[in-house]
Amino acid sequence: MTGWLAVAGLGPGDAGLVTPEVTAALDQATHVLGYVPYVARVAARPGLTLLPSDNREELDRATHALRLASDGGRVVVVSSGDPGVFAMASAVFEALEGWSGAMPDIRILPGITAMLAAAARLGAPLGHDFCAINLSDNLKPWEVIENRLRLAARADFAMAFYNPRSASRPHQFTRTLEILREECGADRLISFARAVATPEERLKTVTLAEAMPEMADMRTLVIVGSSATRRIGPWVYTPRSAGA
Amino acid sequence: MTGWLAVAGLGPGDAGLVTPEVTAALDQATHVLGYVPYVARVAARPGLTLLPSDNREELDRATHALRLASDGGRVVVVSSGDPGVFAMASAVFEALEGWSGAMPDIRILPGITAMLAAAARLGAPLGHDFCAINLSDNLKPWEVIENRLRLAARADFAMAFYNPRSASRPHQFTRTLEILREECGADRLISFARAVATPEERLKTVTLAEAMPEMADMRTLVIVGSSATRRIGPWVYTPRSAGA
Repeated sequence: MTGWLAVAGLGPGDAGLVTPEVTAALDQATHVLGYVPYVARVAARPGLTLLPSDNREELDRATHALRLASDGGRVVVVSSGDPGVFAMASAVFEALEGWSGAMPDIRILPGITAMLAAAARLGAPLGHDFCAINLSDNLKPWEVIENRLRLAARADFAMAFYNPRSASRPHQFTRTLEILREECGADRLISFARAVATPEERLKTVTLAEAMPEMADMRTLVIVGSSATRRIGPWVYTPRSAGA
Repeated sequence: MTGWLAVAGLGPGDAGLVTPEVTAALDQATHVLGYVPYVARVAARPGLTLLPSDNREELDRATHALRLASDGGRVVVVSSGDPGVFAMASAVFEALEGWSGAMPDIRILPGITAMLAAAARLGAPLGHDFCAINLSDNLKPWEVIENRLRLAARADFAMAFYNPRSASRPHQFTRTLEILREECGADRLISFARAVATPEERLKTVTLAEAMPEMADMRTLVIVGSSATRRIGPWVYTPRSAGA
């Protein structure tokens, strides 16, 4: 029996944003592993074992998936969005570094990551050069984040922030807004896209002067425009010739 | 008759990477507009008018689409990848700035952009903070690009380059590699992903010391690792704790 391991992105929430490739992998799977709310998006059926686990158990989950696949399982590890963007693909390769068993067939199946879904609902704020930064300091020192924010602002990137504000460390997003005001000025546009592509979706665009830390939580994707980002009607977009 | 305009991403090439949302919009469309090779990916059927046009005619195409939609058409403008990443969504909003007709209903439908498809095939090189830069200087001065490259390297982003090397200006990618060697050192990993998710797909990862300008053309997506990006077996990935 030849097993395989697919690390699949479920997109931001709506079934219309799940790729056929991911749907096909889930249809063939014997095991699905992932963080509780993501596994809850996979329909139960005979022959499929659902293995939800807690957040912050990514490395254990990845090793478990490697073991099931090398035992002949058809295993899908699910992430929200895209598995390669602040999600399970890197955890699987980290687990592979410590893995001494048989090497299973591994595939990474891309998905619609939160920043692209949010950008589409807002207009086209990432229409020119941009960057993606995970504002959580669980896995890196805050000083690294602060330095990266300043350099990204000086490079005049549009910026997408994942995990902008945790309940345990809310002051860090307050500090992020201070840095952005210093580097980009008060008039720069900032968009808050909460729970995109779900029934709870909420979109809001303001200037940095008007931005409040409370506008973001862990379900919010934040996009800061470049110097060229502008509004047209209800939309926010960055022209193709930005950055000159 | 109420028309609408959808700006849709077809993904990098494989039908398994086209979202159901985009497929549904194409099924309802009366008109599909886009660059010749992208429109060629849409199946002809009675009641659908295919309107392929040349590259570098984005603004005319967008205005044409607005006119058709405000006349009651169900219009889809197609991009490869994601329409919001160096593609047609920004062009539509630019056209909207000069538009005096009725405002049609506009939706942006996200897709799998080339960098996420390439990253998935390579492993997880964008698993930590990263940026996306369009290396074409058609719409911005080369000095802006060069400055952005240096700041992105100093921020220790992984970097994805779109349009890395044009036939008319091949020397600019040579210069890009020189800058990267200066800023990142000779051992930094660089991956060339050509025609991802098509039958002509070709993947290659080398160090900056080994990288040659000829490894890229306009169908290549280039990914440069951060200082933490590493190999494991055939894979390239950036650990989740990168950048410390």
